[in-house]
Amino acid sequence: MTPGKAAENMQRQPKIRKHVPVWRKADRTSRIYRVAAQIMCRRGYEATSMNEIADAVGLTKAGMYYYIQGKEDLLFKIMSFAMDMVEMDVVAPAREALDAEERLRTLMERHVRRILEVGGAVTILLDEMPSLTAAHQRIIRGRKRVYFDLVRETLEQLASEGKLRAVNPAVAAFSLLGMIIWISRWYHRDGLLSADAVLKDVLEMALNGVLKEVASPRALPPAKATLV
Amino acid sequence: MTPGKAAENMQRQPKIRKHVPVWRKADRTSRIYRVAAQIMCRRGYEATSMNEIADAVGLTKAGMYYYIQGKEDLLFKIMSFAMDMVEMDVVAPAREALDAEERLRTLMERHVRRILEVGGAVTILLDEMPSLTAAHQRIIRGRKRVYFDLVRETLEQLASEGKLRAVNPAVAAFSLLGMIIWISRWYHRDGLLSADAVLKDVLEMALNGVLKEVASPRALPPAKATLV
Repeated sequence: MTPGKAAENMQRQPKIRKHVPVWRKADRTSRIYRVAAQIMCRRGYEATSMNEIADAVGLTKAGMYYYIQGKEDLLFKIMSFAMDMVEMDVVAPAREALDAEERLRTLMERHVRRILEVGGAVTILLDEMPSLTAAHQRIIRGRKRVYFDLVRETLEQLASEGKLRAVNPAVAAFSLLGMIIWISRWYHRDGLLSADAVLKDVLEMALNGVLKEVASPRALPPAKATLV
Repeated sequence: MTPGKAAENMQRQPKIRKHVPVWRKADRTSRIYRVAAQIMCRRGYEATSMNEIADAVGLTKAGMYYYIQGKEDLLFKIMSFAMDMVEMDVVAPAREALDAEERLRTLMERHVRRILEVGGAVTILLDEMPSLTAAHQRIIRGRKRVYFDLVRETLEQLASEGKLRAVNPAVAAFSLLGMIIWISRWYHRDGLLSADAVLKDVLEMALNGVLKEVASPRALPPAKATLV
């Protein structure tokens, strides 16, 4: 069998499933999630069919059922994937920062970067709560809550240190998350604005919006010497 | 016929339509929009049936078709109603302010107040663009654009006056709108936070987030004399 033929078979025949290595499966499922999220955002969740998603990822419908059980299961898995990313790439590194301002900056910076790099569709789908089963809603709501609480507690710590503006830490947490999550609705990677420029501006506004004074970011690469 | 009976008939019989005065119709349609928006947000747009909406507003399905042509038409009308409110209550008063900071404050203050008072459902549905026909999408997108441009131009004016932080005015406009629109997702009128407290905090963060220095708001009632 030629390698091309083998690959074709892997896509077409669900019974090959036991030969797919774990890392390969993780890779492919994450691709299915991203592509499915993009289609669901463009067409609307209800209007999207499993056939369309299978076509877009180059699998038969039967082949796709190796990875997912159905449309609601797919939506739940996309949301779980989004929360996995937030927990691994945003929450875990932020928890390592003992200084509250440093932690807030890490949370904002990493979350914004995630949305800019991964694209907004996965983030937008996190809003599709009514389409989940009640049990799945509880799980996703609980995970969102853990993240929200970390942001709010960080702002409470800043308030107790006298660094927060005179605002309610919960209102501040919602406002910062709103500003960040909304990037998923307006940022286009092929547009005029670079991801770095957007990240810099959003951080500037987010931190100055909630803090009385913003410390210089740590660990910036030293600026090159210039003639003054 | 008793008044109760008459009211019942008005609800049940679409053929009474020609006797409904114009103001009464506007009143009832705005109620239909709000109730429908709440149901659509809770259940999801696709999952909501016209029967459910008719039940909730106390009309027969036939009676409701006096006001609206179908589900997509209803969604378009809810979005148009939302944009009407933004244009009347936010954009028009803001255009009267020649001073850019005053205009920005008016835009933020009035938009936040709108969302807090009307409830978030109508605002959330403005995101339901894929469910509209292409022609309706163009209309709503155009109206959103006009509003966005006013916010961005106001920030550009502030930049030219040296009052804006070192951020791109378009990124700043998206960020402020994100912070504000997101209120529709988290604020509950029966929760712990008063609308006034939320408004004050969001304004504090929004203005300090984008402006180097925030002027005191104009037209505050004079503070009472206190012993110093």
